Amino acid sequence: MPSQCLPGSVENALIASQRRATCVIFSGSTLNRGVMIHDSQTRFSIKGQPIYHFVGTSTFSEYTVVHAGCVAKVNPAAPLDKICVLSCGICTGLGATINVAKPKPGSSVAIFGLGAVGLAAAEGARISGASRIIGVDLVSSRFEEAKKFGVNEFVNPKDHDKPVQEVIAAMTNGGVDRAVECTGSIQAMISAFECVHDGWGVAVLVGVPNKDDAFKTHPVNFLNERTLKGTFYGNYKPRTDLPSVVEKYMNGELDLEKFITHTVPFSEINKAFDYMLKGESIRCIIRMGE
Amino acid sequence: MPSQCLPGSVENALIASQRRATCVIFSGSTLNRGVMIHDSQTRFSIKGQPIYHFVGTSTFSEYTVVHAGCVAKVNPAAPLDKICVLSCGICTGLGATINVAKPKPGSSVAIFGLGAVGLAAAEGARISGASRIIGVDLVSSRFEEAKKFGVNEFVNPKDHDKPVQEVIAAMTNGGVDRAVECTGSIQAMISAFECVHDGWGVAVLVGVPNKDDAFKTHPVNFLNERTLKGTFYGNYKPRTDLPSVVEKYMNGELDLEKFITHTVPFSEINKAFDYMLKGESIRCIIRMGE
Repeated sequence: MPSQCLPGSVENALIASQRRATCVIFSGSTLNRGVMIHDSQTRFSIKGQPIYHFVGTSTFSEYTVVHAGCVAKVNPAAPLDKICVLSCGICTGLGATINVAKPKPGSSVAIFGLGAVGLAAAEGARISGASRIIGVDLVSSRFEEAKKFGVNEFVNPKDHDKPVQEVIAAMTNGGVDRAVECTGSIQAMISAFECVHDGWGVAVLVGVPNKDDAFKTHPVNFLNERTLKGTFYGNYKPRTDLPSVVEKYMNGELDLEKFITHTVPFSEINKAFDYMLKGESIRCIIRMGE
Repeated sequence: MPSQCLPGSVENALIASQRRATCVIFSGSTLNRGVMIHDSQTRFSIKGQPIYHFVGTSTFSEYTVVHAGCVAKVNPAAPLDKICVLSCGICTGLGATINVAKPKPGSSVAIFGLGAVGLAAAEGARISGASRIIGVDLVSSRFEEAKKFGVNEFVNPKDHDKPVQEVIAAMTNGGVDRAVECTGSIQAMISAFECVHDGWGVAVLVGVPNKDDAFKTHPVNFLNERTLKGTFYGNYKPRTDLPSVVEKYMNGELDLEKFITHTVPFSEINKAFDYMLKGESIRCIIRMGE
């Protein structure tokens, strides 16, 4: 039975977790509040001032307090300095493809945006056995790196006079089987939907849009039997699903090392932010206690 | 393997029919042309002028010529004056729910528009075991008839100050599990999508929109794990699937009689059009040869 998910109720969260990844723990109101659910308080303070919790995890500290729903028990042999990347964007992209877009072996998949999330979506397409993985990005220099993640064709919308959805339709005899949008740009969302094939095409939105964006398309695109979905955290339920993703890494099905381009000690954390802001890193691991 | 569907190629049509109901036979270009596929000619004429084929079937005659892809072999015991209603709107609505929205037993389903297609969609929800079937229509007098098709709650958007999607969300603790839109109104399409529940809600568009309509919603509605789909002919493949729908009627699972509110002889065909235009009939059967 469907169950309404009410912020503040752990019981409801557990029931709802059968159907949905997010619910209480990652719900918008909790994200915005930065406090624990039960008492709306923080667990840390400095000189009497609260230190707020970020996304319910409060990382960048050696010890932390998190909601039970944010804790997953994983294979104790798994190296934490590798599997830590699974806690956010990598699972988001991977799950967007594997759990939501679900490309069949031999199919074609367009990935919009080749940042960490998009590369993880491409990795999901590769694992699913897609034969054509078309990367779409405004930065052509990203293509070389993207090849490691299974991307085998590349389109830079800037290189074409017509809309990118028309370019992709022409490349694929009418459209790709699946498209995954990992940019947050509303135009990329519309292009991702409009580049899938009539009859069976599925587009999945992953990027976080601006508050005032409107998704806009002609409704006949739906009547022509296309599907549009969105996902949060790749539809993985952290507590119950994360252990199996860790196993995918442990048995060699999923390669995480290639996502980790840099590591820095905690004392150089600002360097990690620089890598991110300049787009130089995919993921930079911060070594605590150094 | 996905296969491109090219008008004019029967072979491609047959391959594609594994994935899609429509293709060559019902493709937009054929609909608009009103001619047979192989030679782009009509099979009828009067005084040297062509009589065009409508939707590839050319009914209202005792004999006709149709494409092989439009012919389905059904149970010879089935009464043609009943199962004829399956050739269009009834399958469209029924399949939109059973094949596309796929409500689980015990779930809630909103049906937008209680004409023949919407009532068939409600019938699909009833057959699927939905417990709450909420009919949405601007004409309150349709509710009484709709009860026969499983509709057990009714909302007339005119009776409320707030948007109907908000009314339905309030009635259902956050939104319905499934919504099926059978009006063709762009506003109803948007409402149908926005009234489904975050996390698992699926909305299905069935109505044919105006050429210039734009479907518009905030993309966060997708990220909250809702799905939007459209369908043509309820995703039934006429040639291979219609026989099984006829069997549903023959074994009593599907009641077609309640859709047939009127019958007239061919000589009174204009009366049938009047019933339809005035909204007095659900389906009116024309008895040929009278």
